[in-house]
Amino acid sequence: MTEFIVRSLERRDCAQLLELVRALAIHHGYVDHLLATADMYESEFFKSGALIGAIVAEVDGKIAGCAIWHRSFSTFRGTEVMYLEDLSVLPEYRSRGIGLSLMKSLARLAKEQKLPSIFWIMMGWNTEARDFYHRLGAEIEANNCVCRLHGAALEALAHG
Amino acid sequence: MTEFIVRSLERRDCAQLLELVRALAIHHGYVDHLLATADMYESEFFKSGALIGAIVAEVDGKIAGCAIWHRSFSTFRGTEVMYLEDLSVLPEYRSRGIGLSLMKSLARLAKEQKLPSIFWIMMGWNTEARDFYHRLGAEIEANNCVCRLHGAALEALAHG
Repeated sequence: MTEFIVRSLERRDCAQLLELVRALAIHHGYVDHLLATADMYESEFFKSGALIGAIVAEVDGKIAGCAIWHRSFSTFRGTEVMYLEDLSVLPEYRSRGIGLSLMKSLARLAKEQKLPSIFWIMMGWNTEARDFYHRLGAEIEANNCVCRLHGAALEALAHG
Repeated sequence: MTEFIVRSLERRDCAQLLELVRALAIHHGYVDHLLATADMYESEFFKSGALIGAIVAEVDGKIAGCAIWHRSFSTFRGTEVMYLEDLSVLPEYRSRGIGLSLMKSLARLAKEQKLPSIFWIMMGWNTEARDFYHRLGAEIEANNCVCRLHGAALEALAHG
């Protein structure tokens, strides 16, 4: 089985990173919500004081998986925490430990940055993800709802 | 009925802001997770390049409600978005439009900051909140799970 290496995102990876996000969007049924471009990623991930970062897994020069995180804040803790926005491994590269290696690297990065907690949102139907995160010792809440306000509803509220 | 004013958080509000977060923690059954202090809020909300901010509602000099938000990022949009961390109105000040005013101010702030979307997490059991957000035109997903990795589990993963 081909070896993989896990490393920080580099500028040249942004087009491939977008393809991983696209794969995730397809898997979750949200591909019509994907508006990002590789240029946007390059600008946002590499700007000074960037909010967002990524760790990638590379196999034979190809990006096979990623953990995209951003800085977040917990009012309960009173400190910054880490939010895991996307964990993605391309289907043909699964079951070889890439996801686990990405999560380990993310945990080390959180420790380095003195962020005491990593949190993320999982779809309730995703039993494979649930088993994986359970094995890592994650606390998993049930019955949460992600709410979003944008477009015409946001405009109406802002001008109401 | 006493009038209220909605305004940005000031340093002197931080102790009262913590009490609102405490009320929310009690309501959600998480008060043992509340580790923040007013000093931590003052330092985090008012530092240069702060990640987090708050809008408060004041009644007769007392903070009766708050919307605490922080900068976040959407890999689908490729841009920063706004995350609503806590919307809270003290029980004795409810049903007079404070929550709606806070959400309107937050929507205006998002527009000013060119953030195209506000998102937040709601407990699935909170039908009162669901009705309120539904009336604002929010999209509400079902069956999400918030996952968290911290403490011993985070240590073990980082050093595994």
